[in-house]
Amino acid sequence: MTATSVLVPSSAGHARTRARLAVSAAAGGGVLSEAQLAAWLRDRRAAQPQRVERVPFAALRGWDFDAAGGDLRHSSGRFFSVHGLRVRSDFGPVAAWDQPIIRQPEVGILGIALRYFDGVPHLLMQAKAEPGNINGVQLSPTVQATKSNYTRVHGGSAVPYLEHFRRAAPGSVVADVLQSEQGSWFLHKRNRNMIVEVGPEVVAEEDFAWLTLGQVNALLRQDDMINMDARTVLSCLPDWRQGEAAGDALHSDADIRSWITDRRAVHEVSAEPIGLARTEGWHRDEKAVAREDGRHFSVVAVDVSSGRREVPAWSQPLIEPHGTGIAALFVRWAGGVPHVLLRARAEAGFLTTVELGPTVQCVPENYAHLPAGSLPPYLSEALERRAKARYDVLLSEEGGRFLHARSHYMIIEVEDEVPLVSDEFRWVSTPQVDELLRYSHHLNVQARTLITALRTL
Amino acid sequence: MTATSVLVPSSAGHARTRARLAVSAAAGGGVLSEAQLAAWLRDRRAAQPQRVERVPFAALRGWDFDAAGGDLRHSSGRFFSVHGLRVRSDFGPVAAWDQPIIRQPEVGILGIALRYFDGVPHLLMQAKAEPGNINGVQLSPTVQATKSNYTRVHGGSAVPYLEHFRRAAPGSVVADVLQSEQGSWFLHKRNRNMIVEVGPEVVAEEDFAWLTLGQVNALLRQDDMINMDARTVLSCLPDWRQGEAAGDALHSDADIRSWITDRRAVHEVSAEPIGLARTEGWHRDEKAVAREDGRHFSVVAVDVSSGRREVPAWSQPLIEPHGTGIAALFVRWAGGVPHVLLRARAEAGFLTTVELGPTVQCVPENYAHLPAGSLPPYLSEALERRAKARYDVLLSEEGGRFLHARSHYMIIEVEDEVPLVSDEFRWVSTPQVDELLRYSHHLNVQARTLITALRTL
Repeated sequence: MTATSVLVPSSAGHARTRARLAVSAAAGGGVLSEAQLAAWLRDRRAAQPQRVERVPFAALRGWDFDAAGGDLRHSSGRFFSVHGLRVRSDFGPVAAWDQPIIRQPEVGILGIALRYFDGVPHLLMQAKAEPGNINGVQLSPTVQATKSNYTRVHGGSAVPYLEHFRRAAPGSVVADVLQSEQGSWFLHKRNRNMIVEVGPEVVAEEDFAWLTLGQVNALLRQDDMINMDARTVLSCLPDWRQGEAAGDALHSDADIRSWITDRRAVHEVSAEPIGLARTEGWHRDEKAVAREDGRHFSVVAVDVSSGRREVPAWSQPLIEPHGTGIAALFVRWAGGVPHVLLRARAEAGFLTTVELGPTVQCVPENYAHLPAGSLPPYLSEALERRAKARYDVLLSEEGGRFLHARSHYMIIEVEDEVPLVSDEFRWVSTPQVDELLRYSHHLNVQARTLITALRTL
Repeated sequence: MTATSVLVPSSAGHARTRARLAVSAAAGGGVLSEAQLAAWLRDRRAAQPQRVERVPFAALRGWDFDAAGGDLRHSSGRFFSVHGLRVRSDFGPVAAWDQPIIRQPEVGILGIALRYFDGVPHLLMQAKAEPGNINGVQLSPTVQATKSNYTRVHGGSAVPYLEHFRRAAPGSVVADVLQSEQGSWFLHKRNRNMIVEVGPEVVAEEDFAWLTLGQVNALLRQDDMINMDARTVLSCLPDWRQGEAAGDALHSDADIRSWITDRRAVHEVSAEPIGLARTEGWHRDEKAVAREDGRHFSVVAVDVSSGRREVPAWSQPLIEPHGTGIAALFVRWAGGVPHVLLRARAEAGFLTTVELGPTVQCVPENYAHLPAGSLPPYLSEALERRAKARYDVLLSEEGGRFLHARSHYMIIEVEDEVPLVSDEFRWVSTPQVDELLRYSHHLNVQARTLITALRTL
């Protein structure tokens, strides 16, 4: 490899990509008509029957609680493990607790291939069954693979399209950024979120379809249709609804970055791995690790059989949340520029202490035992205004790790009289969000879903 | 606090700040003439006598090796501690090792105040003695304070100027970003690097002086004069030698970001805390924790007396490196734009696995026992070209943690025939570096020093 002296514009491709994405977003049908898409979805659901059965931990094949601390691990040492975590935190109403948490130190790839058909970008979406999905098949990215998957630890078949992401050509990468996942359930988890342009030699295999952004956006307005992995990758697309110019905002970019830095410096969160057997307040029986008071979530085990995955049948642990989450984003237009109200959140599993979450993110049931006044800020305002929400869709979290984990995602337009209750909140313009999403660990996975949802409006 | 609807340009202040910094960089004297600056420096050295004496660990006041694992800690639980770390890494010639490492989970503030005198920005630099400095006093930022310092755990006096950084007014922040420090010696350490504009009410107290950027740059070309903390903060200034436009580069911004993401996804580094007493290959005696083969560094203890610090006398551990480091940055002009050759380095203590370091970063003595061919890429090329280096200055690392830790920092201009030896290396344009420095954890502390040095040329 030798250095070449050919120069490219630093921001090569951005303006062109944005303009073409706007065309794709406006397109109803593309390679597939609306009717063909509906038929393909029905067909894929029928073709991917999946049986998911709760089993005792003792029936897990290859998984065991280790003798020392009781952590739940796979015998290969790969995939993921369920640890105990002891948390001390100055964020939120509870100062210290123990909990199980998923550790998955490998960086996986979540990648969507983008191909032009008659100049219109199409995204290659995959119909994929996951054991934790309430409805079996949802639409996932082209590639959704852990390193264990793509280095074939479980001896399965090769991951289709993987090489387009592992060896993306210069100039073909639209986005490529590490992003976190649920900080309450994952310790330091991050996945590579990629969008890569591919050529006409790349065709849709069985279970895959080329969709316009308009078609994807329409599906995003239906419950449980676009999976979490696809939603986070989509949030990393350049925002096609705006130009390249930075424009005006309520706070300068420098002040927004300074606010994030300040929140990271202020909060003190310690998250110390302890054995799962030593988590106080949690109890393990044959079929679950759960809290004695029934709150938050359980760790459970499932047996999965399907003719359509890389491995014909397998068993694995899953996290089963108790209660349905609420993730609400307040939006207001200031000087013609949309701004979103983000909250700087310190979640126990974040690598960088603080990321920006939605205005409201919680499972209301988990607050029932706490003193009045412990409820998250803006929750009651969100619920009061819910009838006028611009977006209100029930979406699933990652079905490969979570069993029937669902949240109501809402976008609520507010006037400017909403007072900010603390320095944890800031109005951030959507062009500023777009810039933050080019760098890792600024918006959490719930906020990224809501940014993806906002772009469908 | 209520949201206001006053909009500001997103990039408010940048262009103006850059233009004024250029004026400051061109200024020889400012508030102080060259002669006055020289006299002030002599005077401050004389006024800050400091006695630093190696003592046995048993003589440390407030510090003890803990009974469980032998880690060295302060009885307050604050400041920092020296742990044992077990590392497995696929970066560099050694796959697994144990080592002591400093843990300092608090986020400190490194801040430089910037004030306009007749329209010319001046930086408030502090003459500060540190126990590990080879020459006592060096120039540090206006504020260089751990959280333990500024929350006054040791009962000392207040940190001057601190409130200008802790409560910076909107619009006054030039830079504010968390940056890492030495990944071989610190576990997940990060400090807040800030530059804040202040008004004419802020005056220079004893030990402080307002310097133009031209004066600071001249001092950066002298050995051991500008300390590490000042150098890293200075690297976060917007680059005054370029305009706002992104311009051309050898690789697009998207491709540079994708390269960083790829390097972070590819490398697997595990760094597991173990007790200091359990570090294999290391031995503790009365006065040092050191390797049996004498390589790398020792952990030692010092007793410090000084009439001029927040606390009159104290004792503390320090890391004493063996050998003088080399940090070399290759620079080439492509299409009129300077590019620097950065190496994606996985250092054991990095929070994000990989940051970009200089072309060469090593202590050559540490490679003496390894097979031929283990020497870092480009080291011999750097040494061959050293006589023609554009910059070759001996600089100290942080004197509050390291005893006489020094490296030769070199900037070497090369033609474009230098072949890239692996995907660990990329030519990155200086405007791209400027952008990466607005976000945390992209350039390591050695690369940041060299970027600061490059701007003096």
